Amino acid sequence: MIQRPRGTRDFTQEEMITRKVIENDLRTTALRFGYFEIATPTFENAELFIRKSGPEIVGQLYTFTDKGGRELVLRPELTAPVIRFYANELYKQPKPLKIFYLGNCFRYERPQKGRFREFWQFGAELIGTDKPEGIAELITFAVTCLANVGLKTYDLRLGDLEFLRNILADWAFPTERQGGFLNALDKGDVDSLTAMLQDENIPARSVEAFLELIQTKFDAAEFETKYELLLDQFPVIKEHLERFKNVVLLLRRFGITEFTIDLGIARGLDYYTGIVFEIDVGSLGAEKQVCGGGEYSLGELFQIKDIACSGFAIGFDRVTLAYNLEGLIAEKPQLDIFIIPLSTPGLHKAIELANLLRIEGFNIDMDLKDRNMSKNLKYASSRKVKYVVFLGEDELDKGSALVRAMNSGDQTEVAFGELVNYFQNLA
Amino acid sequence: MIQRPRGTRDFTQEEMITRKVIENDLRTTALRFGYFEIATPTFENAELFIRKSGPEIVGQLYTFTDKGGRELVLRPELTAPVIRFYANELYKQPKPLKIFYLGNCFRYERPQKGRFREFWQFGAELIGTDKPEGIAELITFAVTCLANVGLKTYDLRLGDLEFLRNILADWAFPTERQGGFLNALDKGDVDSLTAMLQDENIPARSVEAFLELIQTKFDAAEFETKYELLLDQFPVIKEHLERFKNVVLLLRRFGITEFTIDLGIARGLDYYTGIVFEIDVGSLGAEKQVCGGGEYSLGELFQIKDIACSGFAIGFDRVTLAYNLEGLIAEKPQLDIFIIPLSTPGLHKAIELANLLRIEGFNIDMDLKDRNMSKNLKYASSRKVKYVVFLGEDELDKGSALVRAMNSGDQTEVAFGELVNYFQNLA
Repeated sequence: MIQRPRGTRDFTQEEMITRKVIENDLRTTALRFGYFEIATPTFENAELFIRKSGPEIVGQLYTFTDKGGRELVLRPELTAPVIRFYANELYKQPKPLKIFYLGNCFRYERPQKGRFREFWQFGAELIGTDKPEGIAELITFAVTCLANVGLKTYDLRLGDLEFLRNILADWAFPTERQGGFLNALDKGDVDSLTAMLQDENIPARSVEAFLELIQTKFDAAEFETKYELLLDQFPVIKEHLERFKNVVLLLRRFGITEFTIDLGIARGLDYYTGIVFEIDVGSLGAEKQVCGGGEYSLGELFQIKDIACSGFAIGFDRVTLAYNLEGLIAEKPQLDIFIIPLSTPGLHKAIELANLLRIEGFNIDMDLKDRNMSKNLKYASSRKVKYVVFLGEDELDKGSALVRAMNSGDQTEVAFGELVNYFQNLA
Repeated sequence: MIQRPRGTRDFTQEEMITRKVIENDLRTTALRFGYFEIATPTFENAELFIRKSGPEIVGQLYTFTDKGGRELVLRPELTAPVIRFYANELYKQPKPLKIFYLGNCFRYERPQKGRFREFWQFGAELIGTDKPEGIAELITFAVTCLANVGLKTYDLRLGDLEFLRNILADWAFPTERQGGFLNALDKGDVDSLTAMLQDENIPARSVEAFLELIQTKFDAAEFETKYELLLDQFPVIKEHLERFKNVVLLLRRFGITEFTIDLGIARGLDYYTGIVFEIDVGSLGAEKQVCGGGEYSLGELFQIKDIACSGFAIGFDRVTLAYNLEGLIAEKPQLDIFIIPLSTPGLHKAIELANLLRIEGFNIDMDLKDRNMSKNLKYASSRKVKYVVFLGEDELDKGSALVRAMNSGDQTEVAFGELVNYFQNLA
């Protein structure tokens, strides 16, 4: 028997109910924040990702050549396609442009718990503003997504790549090596970082202070105290530290008061420029990061007029996993009524009643296998139907149906003409 | 500038609103008929489609080899993956199994109006019954999908491949050539059909009668008259004609009274067995077919216990096109309020109000670019906001905001504490 490809998933009815409920929570949250949905194709010209993605992602690309000789790629992430769409067409729209999207992505990596070769991302981009209130609202939006899905605990970590860039610039660290440096930082590879700084003849004391900085983590509540210390140690970051302080202040206004300042966040991609953030969900254990984002600039890469952007991506599958792990239960769409005709005239009446009740908005199923009563009841029960309607010959003669409430077993005889009303009053 | 690949599409905010409204109509309709949603991966092992799809589809496949050497295919249609999922896992569930799905498919064909290389299908399968009420309800479901989306005119055509198979069997037409025969029939290639029948030494008079049969089209209202004629001409189809008659009767009970009997429908794929149907939407012009389906059997192909199935696929993109052509307009999610702070204290108050109003379920946007009033008003107007809230210094001093209704221009001063109430009363 043919199986599905390794690292991919099929989704059962129960899984889809949960996914659709979470999708709906995310969409509703996006609208609350003034974001509207867009979508891009599943595959793109290979060039888009080879030029724009980090080396790790490029090594995991699903590339192929179409029958017209085009080099194509199944998208490994959604920001690059969205910015391509912006550069092709959306650039005409008034700024700031607030857009979100939910789509599947593909990476050839070793399948493991919570990691799949086809996975879903929910993301948002705020294009056309570099103001502190822009990034503060975006971060609030990301956090509110997780809150509205119903997750109980999540930890926001906030950093700023500009601090690092300022310090590196102050040391005249070559710009072309900053990408590799940030990659090593993203991996927490302190040995490589130390070696790279020593290569540039940065004094040992400065290297030590820098390594301390990128390992700096503290509660947002301590920000005011730490602010002075940071400024004292790295006067070159003054301007950005001031801006960072303002973002922290605005986040508090937005009700985001508990978070961690983590100056070691580097994000894998080197198009990030300023504030970066990540959100972890503790219930997920080791692979706990569900969201990452920040301020970035793609102008140069896309040969378009540079424009300030910020955005984030939420790992939809990990959110779903956390949802299940935290014992959250999606409200299931209910199968309201199952109709059991017990004869050919009963079947004709069943069809008529199914029509009427469906028009009134009830979810209806009926015997489609011409089975006996007990098999039908077993089936109705397996489908978790609320009510069963019997159309036996006795009932047909009387112009009525027998309604059984499946939870109590109570039975009521209801005239055909009263049936819609009867169920409307129960609902 | 990098463009999207040929034959694919980006979807703007307006397009996505329409698509999501149509998706929602289709999902709601499916639930009314007792169908629940599932999903399968975007790519499958190539074998699945190479073995199961018609030759035309195989020629249009997007195939590729992954880094592990697996031959994969971007799915060209959704029935084969769904049946694979059934054979792998869902076979354990009680029958009949009623499942639906909405997904993207890929075919390398020449892009033209309403035809894309990435396109969407909405489909349903009814697995585990061969009763007339099963296929009659399925067809009703398909028609109701289009009605509930709001399309005004659509034409259902109903055929039965079993008639043709019975006649061919009666003539001892070789089974292994029936697939090719049905393919020629699907293309309306009368010359090939005639040649194939002549090759088997079918008498000229029989060939003529057969060609007449497959070109037979009549209104469902004429069925009772035509029934006798058909039976007279092809007595071998008696049993299936009786069953067909019953399906026509049940369809009428389901309220589907206006349709065409079209005995020339062959469907492209040779796994169809009995009743087949197609639905056209006249407003689409030449490429007007939006739905196709019927009774089929996949057991042999999948090496599973044979089981009676029926199903259909609706071309989601064509439905969307028809929706627009018929002048239907999706109700847009509204941006309710745009908040304009005119100072730093105004910004802090704006954030506080945005929080409050979002929690109450309003869709809120605010100035994120620190712009002046007139630029903000222009932006709010471009985003079709219903109300603008000004937080000028005068207002802040008085503890109130100025609310402007964008449609009338009327302005009202509202105390901060009253603002949520004020908007709730307007909604």
